[in-house]
Amino acid sequence: MKSKLLLALISMTLAGTAAAQVKPEDAIKYRQSGYAFMAWNMARIKANAEGTYNKDEVVKAANAIQAIANSGMGALYLPGTDKGKGWEETRVKPELFTDKEKVGKAGMAFNKEANEMAKVAAAGDVAAVKEQLGKLGGTCKGCHDDFKMKK
Amino acid sequence: MKSKLLLALISMTLAGTAAAQVKPEDAIKYRQSGYAFMAWNMARIKANAEGTYNKDEVVKAANAIQAIANSGMGALYLPGTDKGKGWEETRVKPELFTDKEKVGKAGMAFNKEANEMAKVAAAGDVAAVKEQLGKLGGTCKGCHDDFKMKK
Repeated sequence: MKSKLLLALISMTLAGTAAAQVKPEDAIKYRQSGYAFMAWNMARIKANAEGTYNKDEVVKAANAIQAIANSGMGALYLPGTDKGKGWEETRVKPELFTDKEKVGKAGMAFNKEANEMAKVAAAGDVAAVKEQLGKLGGTCKGCHDDFKMKK
Repeated sequence: MKSKLLLALISMTLAGTAAAQVKPEDAIKYRQSGYAFMAWNMARIKANAEGTYNKDEVVKAANAIQAIANSGMGALYLPGTDKGKGWEETRVKPELFTDKEKVGKAGMAFNKEANEMAKVAAAGDVAAVKEQLGKLGGTCKGCHDDFKMKK
């Protein structure tokens, strides 16, 4: 990983632009990583909302989701990454690369609810956190239904 | 993944606490995901600092690193995760589970530089971004040297 990263850094340095120079298998790995890390944080918020509530943990989890949601992961859906293996084979559907309007709406809905999740977490009302987690989870599920193949 | 996540959510709901209920293989997967996602964002900042600078992209990347660094990933180093496979076999060294003082210092140094990275990115001075990226990368490398086995 380290030497691969170094190579990637060098090749990007020479070319000058980041997004265009990420190798397809790395782009798939990075996006799988972003989603998996958000899944952990969704699960933490849910566990807190339904069990013993730790405001600090929920804030940290919501902030991580928010920052990843706003990081510009769309750049990781490069041409040539409709098939291929990152950590595992991608399960992206072809529609993600063709139905730009629907993808854009799904992304905006997700970002909106992720930003709201961070606000609600900071306020610390457990019932509101639970409700907002449902809304945020709904945008995850909607996008998975449309653009992610089932196992 | 979806059904596994649902099962994880249900089991955590029943038990009431998040950290204690993450399965070892999931904990390893989540921490590998966090580091891989940060690696992408480190590479993006480097490419911007050395190529065509896009302040907005650097801010997004630095914010993602900051939020992941502050998310409390230490909770993912559960007992029983010193060996095992997440996305791939973990390369954590045994010392991470025994040398708490050194781990704590490494974590605090990393968080400090990640927080500073986000501030410097927001200010937008390219030379300062490059310098801070070096400091942040140094804390990554230091921790890898001490606690991560080489491939």
